[in-house]
Amino acid sequence: MASEKLLDVDPLLERLQQFADARDWQRFHTPKNLVLALTGEVGELAEIFQWKTDAEAVALHQNPAEFEHLGEEIADVLLYLVRLAQVSGIDLEHAVADKLLKNAKKYPAA
Amino acid sequence: MASEKLLDVDPLLERLQQFADARDWQRFHTPKNLVLALTGEVGELAEIFQWKTDAEAVALHQNPAEFEHLGEEIADVLLYLVRLAQVSGIDLEHAVADKLLKNAKKYPAA
Amino acid sequence: MASEKLLDVDPLLERLQQFADARDWQRFHTPKNLVLALTGEVGELAEIFQWKTDAEAVALHQNPAEFEHLGEEIADVLLYLVRLAQVSGIDLEHAVADKLLKNAKKYPAA
Amino acid sequence: MASEKLLDVDPLLERLQQFADARDWQRFHTPKNLVLALTGEVGELAEIFQWKTDAEAVALHQNPAEFEHLGEEIADVLLYLVRLAQVSGIDLEHAVADKLLKNAKKYPAA
Repeated sequence: MASEKLLDVDPLLERLQQFADARDWQRFHTPKNLVLALTGEVGELAEIFQWKTDAEAVALHQNPAEFEHLGEEIADVLLYLVRLAQVSGIDLEHAVADKLLKNAKKYPAA
Repeated sequence: MASEKLLDVDPLLERLQQFADARDWQRFHTPKNLVLALTGEVGELAEIFQWKTDAEAVALHQNPAEFEHLGEEIADVLLYLVRLAQVSGIDLEHAVADKLLKNAKKYPAA
Repeated sequence: MASEKLLDVDPLLERLQQFADARDWQRFHTPKNLVLALTGEVGELAEIFQWKTDAEAVALHQNPAEFEHLGEEIADVLLYLVRLAQVSGIDLEHAVADKLLKNAKKYPAA
Repeated sequence: MASEKLLDVDPLLERLQQFADARDWQRFHTPKNLVLALTGEVGELAEIFQWKTDAEAVALHQNPAEFEHLGEEIADVLLYLVRLAQVSGIDLEHAVADKLLKNAKKYPAA
């Protein structure tokens, strides 16, 4: 990693905390609840693709409504995932950098 | 959103593309396959919490091995999600900012 | 297992086959698509419980509308799972009996 | 439905109750925990197919080890699903029959 930062989620973390605080949602945002919410959103993502062929899945961007819907569902998954990291005390940037190093060792390039 | 950027994933996107290219993994990284892989990783995340009480889930950081494992699984979910956005042509930063605006309208603060 | 049958899904299998045949759905019911559909339904199941406390989850039957919804989502998961077994050639009754034997060995009663 | 029973899970329900009782597992088998466990098993099912083409997924039965593994994962999903129905008070046979009737109305055969 050194000097390069692979991703920066700090402003998003701050925003999510404010958002939850302003709505008194901390009591709902337990780790188990957030994993269930994440599962719900991944389910909605899966529904987008469930009856599509691979070719139709790749061409999804040609349908503006479906493409916008896909972006929303991906965003929903990310938001719950980042919030889960936050309430669990996981440093997401560090965790991702670590995992990429492990993956690079586990799967060396040919 | 204006001048503030809520998250920055550009360096990660570049790294993921290089990683896949160097291993000739593009042919595996179809949208449907990535949703299945994401589902697999969310399953591993769920397994961490499945038999824990809410109190045990909140105290998970007290167990260094479990805490590291949690960080890895959260990272795995994020990596497949970012890669899914990438191969699908979704601008993740934009999608997240959009979704937060929609959420703010849908759930106004008290 | 011997003479006892732990579960009987034969009439359901026949019904599912007829249902898919009558709608020309065989081409959609590939193993991968059915796993995605199953993921979608498990997501809907997770959504039912995501913001509930354990006490609220246990008391869900007191709300007739939510209780009916829970039954529907559990049924949806089962229907896609049985269909996945069917198109994959898995003998579900045998697989379940086998797994119970393995579980009994893996987790001996105290 | 009338006189026909689409599926029979009564012996399995009895066995699952005995199994949990003998291991004092009732306290772990809350609805939320069982949904998380179900998510974990669906994740393992998804992993089986994640990098396979549709053709490879359909031909999976040609690999005895993978085919056995598929049967185990499908069984695991079914076991947690049936247990979830049990602890939630859902009559699974009735719920499935109901859902099929609804599906038949929603998707009339051509």
